Amino acid sequence: MDVPYIYWLDLFGTAVFAISGALAAGRKNLDLFGVIVLGLVTAVGGGTLRDATLGATPVFWVVDPVYIIVASTAALVTVVLARLDRIPHGLLVRADALGLATFTVIGADKALSLGFSPVIALVTGVMTGCFGGMIRDLLCGEIPLVLQKEIYATAALFGAAVYVGAWLSPAPTAVAIWGGLFAALILRLAAIRWHLQLPVFTHEGR
Amino acid sequence: MDVPYIYWLDLFGTAVFAISGALAAGRKNLDLFGVIVLGLVTAVGGGTLRDATLGATPVFWVVDPVYIIVASTAALVTVVLARLDRIPHGLLVRADALGLATFTVIGADKALSLGFSPVIALVTGVMTGCFGGMIRDLLCGEIPLVLQKEIYATAALFGAAVYVGAWLSPAPTAVAIWGGLFAALILRLAAIRWHLQLPVFTHEGR
Amino acid sequence: MDVPYIYWLDLFGTAVFAISGALAAGRKNLDLFGVIVLGLVTAVGGGTLRDATLGATPVFWVVDPVYIIVASTAALVTVVLARLDRIPHGLLVRADALGLATFTVIGADKALSLGFSPVIALVTGVMTGCFGGMIRDLLCGEIPLVLQKEIYATAALFGAAVYVGAWLSPAPTAVAIWGGLFAALILRLAAIRWHLQLPVFTHEGR
Repeated sequence: MDVPYIYWLDLFGTAVFAISGALAAGRKNLDLFGVIVLGLVTAVGGGTLRDATLGATPVFWVVDPVYIIVASTAALVTVVLARLDRIPHGLLVRADALGLATFTVIGADKALSLGFSPVIALVTGVMTGCFGGMIRDLLCGEIPLVLQKEIYATAALFGAAVYVGAWLSPAPTAVAIWGGLFAALILRLAAIRWHLQLPVFTHEGR
Repeated sequence: MDVPYIYWLDLFGTAVFAISGALAAGRKNLDLFGVIVLGLVTAVGGGTLRDATLGATPVFWVVDPVYIIVASTAALVTVVLARLDRIPHGLLVRADALGLATFTVIGADKALSLGFSPVIALVTGVMTGCFGGMIRDLLCGEIPLVLQKEIYATAALFGAAVYVGAWLSPAPTAVAIWGGLFAALILRLAAIRWHLQLPVFTHEGR
Repeated sequence: MDVPYIYWLDLFGTAVFAISGALAAGRKNLDLFGVIVLGLVTAVGGGTLRDATLGATPVFWVVDPVYIIVASTAALVTVVLARLDRIPHGLLVRADALGLATFTVIGADKALSLGFSPVIALVTGVMTGCFGGMIRDLLCGEIPLVLQKEIYATAALFGAAVYVGAWLSPAPTAVAIWGGLFAALILRLAAIRWHLQLPVFTHEGR
């Protein structure tokens, strides 16, 4: 995809996701290496699974190691900022929404560009946006937040659907990309602002 | 593999595994999206890992998105049935045995069809049958049941071994498929009926 | 890579990692099949992820099933030795250091041999050495030890860096291999001996 700014937004999302991984590592008192691993896994986990399932290997960060460098640096900088007590949490949760939206459209776009069906594009869109955070939580011994909290994966699904819909229409690619990105971003920001939640499924027994 | 009925049994197994994922999501109070994700992961996780390790990418559900549609639909229907208190647990555990047996022979068959060795077919057979349930339990923050409970993975290994043995013999493919499938199914049903268990390994210390 | 002894060290590392997986299974009272699965996953998990991300599929143990046979056998032998109370724990932790060092240089070497960049070789080196142990701990419901304990992943990173550095120099491959291997081994043994640790990152809040 050669839509302007998207590559930079992708690197931005990579850094923000790495920061969220590093902060999770800090809550579990991991050592410095654990901070880097959790940052990396959160940042590139979704795209790695996407590429492995699509057969688009070597995966994206093997082809372009800048992602590894950005994510490890962001994780290490997080430790310094946390020591200085300068983590802007409110800003971070909104930056994370932008990362989620970007990763989602990139993931959906990759499937369509490779010639796969719209259903697969929905799956790889959500996967790219959400899977990194799921592994982060698993590695911290917690049930993944994205399966529980305010509309998160749902925002990714919405963004991917808007993107796929626009892509099927005669609209230019850039319109589809930005439409999907803003759809996911706005729904996620609204969910943060008004604590929107999907209904919860509760079931006892086996 | 073009043995009649096997494709339909495969979709049946996909639906049953998705239901077990959705019910696990209900026990952890996940939201509706978490229900779908857990259903999908349980249903297609084993085959996904199999295809990624064999290099048979794009993986099966990317090639045939029907699996995604069946699994998500089954997960959502589960929520409705659970609200109506209509989950037939006794039936479900037996349906799961049929899904396990089907997934196992399909997994073993894929390795042999691609020209890999019988040892690998045993591994991919068990992997296809059991790995989805292992990720389901991991995502729920539990130690995978298949590593602990009544003969489950062992039934898969038995079915895969019967299939591989028959495949090495001059018997037609359909015989190998159905032989392996029934071997796994019967052992699993017997384990459910009489609570058969493998010996447990207990070890203290590091 | 055709450096003498490395293949044997690789199988040795596979056995040692399988033993550590089997012992972890024993601490969680898994059944015999769980012991084999945990042994296998610990032994081949790192190399599997490496090959899947590099696109070097089918993955190494599909190409050479000896790894599967060695790992399952080692896991089963562990159960017998544990019954006889003959697990030499002090020896094992040192053997594990040798396995870690071997896996690391093999992982880094694979990336460079396939023509990927030095940054990727660092990642695949550490991944090959450490990822199996991470899945082992995850499957046991624990936060991965390698992210917390005495310098472990860091020893892998150090070994991978020495290997990559030597590989970029005019030194013969064998020198790079053994240099990287000993660098990782010595740092890990020193960490065990003097309980060296990386600083821990502690952070409260979201």
